[in-house]
Amino acid sequence: MMPTIDFWFDFASSYSYPAAMRADALAAAAGVKLNWRPFLLGPIFVAQGWRDSPFNLYPRKGRYMWRDIERICARENLPFKRPDVFPQNSLLAARCALALDAADRSAFARAVFAAEFAKGERIDDPATLAGILAELSLPDSALVRASSDPIKQALRAETDEAQRLELFGAPSFVTQDGELFWGNDRLETAIAWTKAH
Amino acid sequence: MMPTIDFWFDFASSYSYPAAMRADALAAAAGVKLNWRPFLLGPIFVAQGWRDSPFNLYPRKGRYMWRDIERICARENLPFKRPDVFPQNSLLAARCALALDAADRSAFARAVFAAEFAKGERIDDPATLAGILAELSLPDSALVRASSDPIKQALRAETDEAQRLELFGAPSFVTQDGELFWGNDRLETAIAWTKAH
Repeated sequence: MMPTIDFWFDFASSYSYPAAMRADALAAAAGVKLNWRPFLLGPIFVAQGWRDSPFNLYPRKGRYMWRDIERICARENLPFKRPDVFPQNSLLAARCALALDAADRSAFARAVFAAEFAKGERIDDPATLAGILAELSLPDSALVRASSDPIKQALRAETDEAQRLELFGAPSFVTQDGELFWGNDRLETAIAWTKAH
Repeated sequence: MMPTIDFWFDFASSYSYPAAMRADALAAAAGVKLNWRPFLLGPIFVAQGWRDSPFNLYPRKGRYMWRDIERICARENLPFKRPDVFPQNSLLAARCALALDAADRSAFARAVFAAEFAKGERIDDPATLAGILAELSLPDSALVRASSDPIKQALRAETDEAQRLELFGAPSFVTQDGELFWGNDRLETAIAWTKAH
């Protein structure tokens, strides 16, 4: 059995973009399996008293974050285009990801992040998601199932689980022995921890 | 001329401890000079609406931080003992650092951080700082000068400069071309940036 890391991400989260683009290759090279787990940061932020992204509530942090993302993307050779709207509503994309087979989730997620942060597209637009499904030859029924009760409940359960795990940001990495690592720059640390324990 | 990085730190800041212990060796190995610049985060937090450390205001972030610091210290072979009081009042230690010659500042700072985060001592106690000065054979007059008007003004000016630079946390690294990198885990990034630009 390959060791596993839960990779918790929100499609609205800027630092989840470089993490998503790097994660599978790094994990595979280390012989670690990633569980891609979309969740919603919104309810977690609200529980902390934040009604918006901390990057909007604290403009300095926001200016730093955009410059930092720009530098990270340049270093990783990832295209980057700052979206007009931030954060975007990630509800539909997250539901759509959960409506897919687990094996298809990472390719779909990378394409959604690229649409959002490389092309500046709206990911709350069903047309964007339908285009991604078509491009990846994934079943377009996922978009219909995304609005079904079981999928709505599945995303709620995942967000509840994120709350229970005390996640407070994204991306977050949770190892099998229950260690939490927060942030794109902790992906390597989470993998190294998993290999060493 | 060696390229220079401004290393902004607050003696109260937990992540500034591993940064301070690692910084000089990493910078020297890369042929980079570090300017050790103590400042006060308090006024910067207050300007953002925080009357306490965010690690106390947001208990999840706090629990994560302590576990994270523990892991980082274990990895770096740094002793760690969680202090009873957090954050400690760093005013006197910061003034004392500024009262010393710039060349003596890093050794003094490392000893203060070790007293605080490795031994669990109070750094707002003049006796702790006097002991450190004696141990390092530094002039004990620094502690007297720490309460003089020029030094009080010097620390105020540094904290104003930190505000002007839009620092929002510590440690922060500012390169000669004006790039800001925030956090212990960005020390290597700041050094790499400096070498590449």
